[in-house]
Amino acid sequence: MIVHCEERTVSPDRASVLAEVQVLLDARIAGSDRYGGAIRELWELAARRVGGGKLLRPILLLDTCAALRRAGQLGAEAPVGAADAAVVLRCAAALELLHFAFLLHDDVIDHDLVRRGEENLVGELHRRGSARGGTQRSLHWARSAGLLLGDQLLALVHQEVARLRVPERRRTMLLDLLDDAVAESAAGELLDVGLADGMIPPERTAVMTMTRSKTAAYSFELPLGMAAVLAGADSGTTDALRHAGRCAGTAFQLQDDLLSAFGDERLHGKDPWSDIREGKRTLLIEAARGTPAWPRIQEALGGQESGPRDGERLRMLLEQCGARARVEEEIRAQLAAARRALAPASSPVPAEVAQVIDQHLRRLEGRSR
Amino acid sequence: MIVHCEERTVSPDRASVLAEVQVLLDARIAGSDRYGGAIRELWELAARRVGGGKLLRPILLLDTCAALRRAGQLGAEAPVGAADAAVVLRCAAALELLHFAFLLHDDVIDHDLVRRGEENLVGELHRRGSARGGTQRSLHWARSAGLLLGDQLLALVHQEVARLRVPERRRTMLLDLLDDAVAESAAGELLDVGLADGMIPPERTAVMTMTRSKTAAYSFELPLGMAAVLAGADSGTTDALRHAGRCAGTAFQLQDDLLSAFGDERLHGKDPWSDIREGKRTLLIEAARGTPAWPRIQEALGGQESGPRDGERLRMLLEQCGARARVEEEIRAQLAAARRALAPASSPVPAEVAQVIDQHLRRLEGRSR
Repeated sequence: MIVHCEERTVSPDRASVLAEVQVLLDARIAGSDRYGGAIRELWELAARRVGGGKLLRPILLLDTCAALRRAGQLGAEAPVGAADAAVVLRCAAALELLHFAFLLHDDVIDHDLVRRGEENLVGELHRRGSARGGTQRSLHWARSAGLLLGDQLLALVHQEVARLRVPERRRTMLLDLLDDAVAESAAGELLDVGLADGMIPPERTAVMTMTRSKTAAYSFELPLGMAAVLAGADSGTTDALRHAGRCAGTAFQLQDDLLSAFGDERLHGKDPWSDIREGKRTLLIEAARGTPAWPRIQEALGGQESGPRDGERLRMLLEQCGARARVEEEIRAQLAAARRALAPASSPVPAEVAQVIDQHLRRLEGRSR
Repeated sequence: MIVHCEERTVSPDRASVLAEVQVLLDARIAGSDRYGGAIRELWELAARRVGGGKLLRPILLLDTCAALRRAGQLGAEAPVGAADAAVVLRCAAALELLHFAFLLHDDVIDHDLVRRGEENLVGELHRRGSARGGTQRSLHWARSAGLLLGDQLLALVHQEVARLRVPERRRTMLLDLLDDAVAESAAGELLDVGLADGMIPPERTAVMTMTRSKTAAYSFELPLGMAAVLAGADSGTTDALRHAGRCAGTAFQLQDDLLSAFGDERLHGKDPWSDIREGKRTLLIEAARGTPAWPRIQEALGGQESGPRDGERLRMLLEQCGARARVEEEIRAQLAAARRALAPASSPVPAEVAQVIDQHLRRLEGRSR
């Protein structure tokens, strides 16, 4: 399961991002009329559901871009002008649509009808479809529609980035960043599935690559990298921001793994142990492998379909064998690496920009949802 | 099922297209190394399997573009120069990758492991995976990998079109054409699934929209439209070519529906009656509805899982009730409309260009595979 964005933000940018996303989806709704009501309904459903999270990715881009602008001209390239705030906002909206597309395909792959305790888009299509046909047909329709809507959202994101009104060199850099993020996220998701299905040996390298790739690239590295390019930052600043994003995103994913096992489900809203039930090979599980507690942990993990036989016992074993501590240590190390990449003494990132990003990092630390 | 391209061609362009496709996939193979062997293997598998058809779409683009160039300057815009033949070839390769992406997602949606009598990519992944895990896990892995590989191919197509070295206005026109084709193909596929699953009422409008949308837009309209834009054709010529492509592509899809029911499977290689088994609502079936033979046809259609109880009897009924003749008539009407759009007396399309496209249309007529 790709993790949903977590931070609450009171930024006034939130409304602008949501409005921009709706502009893009309204155009799709209007364009779908010629294919009949069912296609229009699907886009309307997407429009109602998009942006339901905390807009982590767009807000990270907007905050960072604004901070880079305040810090003044950074490289040889002029920042996108104030008149082009629309370009930055469009890019932010594209990030939210990319997130939505990935969540949709993730739900299709995981056969999930629920996300964070609430019916997801596939689940809603299935519920509505059940009135029109049997469960199997309705499930097939719902998943197929989720897949095809995800395809169209992915295409839309690329169309929007390809049409951004910025100089060609800058647009190519943005396309490069998008390309990296899509390739890396898909690779991470593939590793996740392959490890869970027992098609890829659960070696630590594969588990760490999966943990680093499936969320960090598109959720942190991409927003920070795009902000740098839009603001005209030099390549040193861009690279430092991307590296910081990569590390912060890895911490974010690891936290999510921990929350799934140890968090308060009333706060984070995730189906507890859903990772375990889906056979997911998180670092938490891999850290337990090879410890003396492993045979008892395996037993407590239970069958793949059922979830753990005894959640409390599993939690205790994962604590006692040191797996939880090992993951917490890795989270601290990743956050420390992110901060090193932004440290005023050694980083090309201006101090006031580092400060803005640090606020996001602090929100990550100790999050419970 | 999206229809595979059909025409045999001996064009020397074939080798160039395949080489260009391999260039694009080789870059992906090289880029995937950092995610470990499983991801690299997937791209290698894609590289081995892509371009296995007749390259209908790339060849249509290359032939039309070359004919437009021979016909000389057509509009206010200069054609992409001879030195930029590489641009045209890149665009042609992108079309083949788009086709490959759509076939992959179609196979995932239809739960197909075989295409035209041969194991498809999902089937190969499943067969290999079965050695490493149970059938269910291996199937899940194979379909998930097919979905994620399709995502990446779809992203790659957009990346390539977005980076074509043509003037910005021209690139935007190409992006517009791609956008239309992706939206329309996805809508067509959605209607196909929704009709088969009983989620969309099988009204004639929906069946015709599905028939027109799922193949024609990306297989005929897009190659002809892109050729026009690359050659610098005026908007009248571009529109006429797109319209001709739309009509020819609809005929192509209808022929495929007929072949599935009446064709010689030794020639066309399709699983006979696979459309019926998947509950597909082709125009052939819709034309039979409402005729006096319908109750007997329904009976002969049998259950959704099994295919027809008696194929010979079903064929006879579909002939006798006039459904086959109705579809054949529609095919003739669509091909006639395509020819009208290209007729020298009334069309802005130069006669020598029309002639080249007519060769493709003639190959379509009476095809048996």
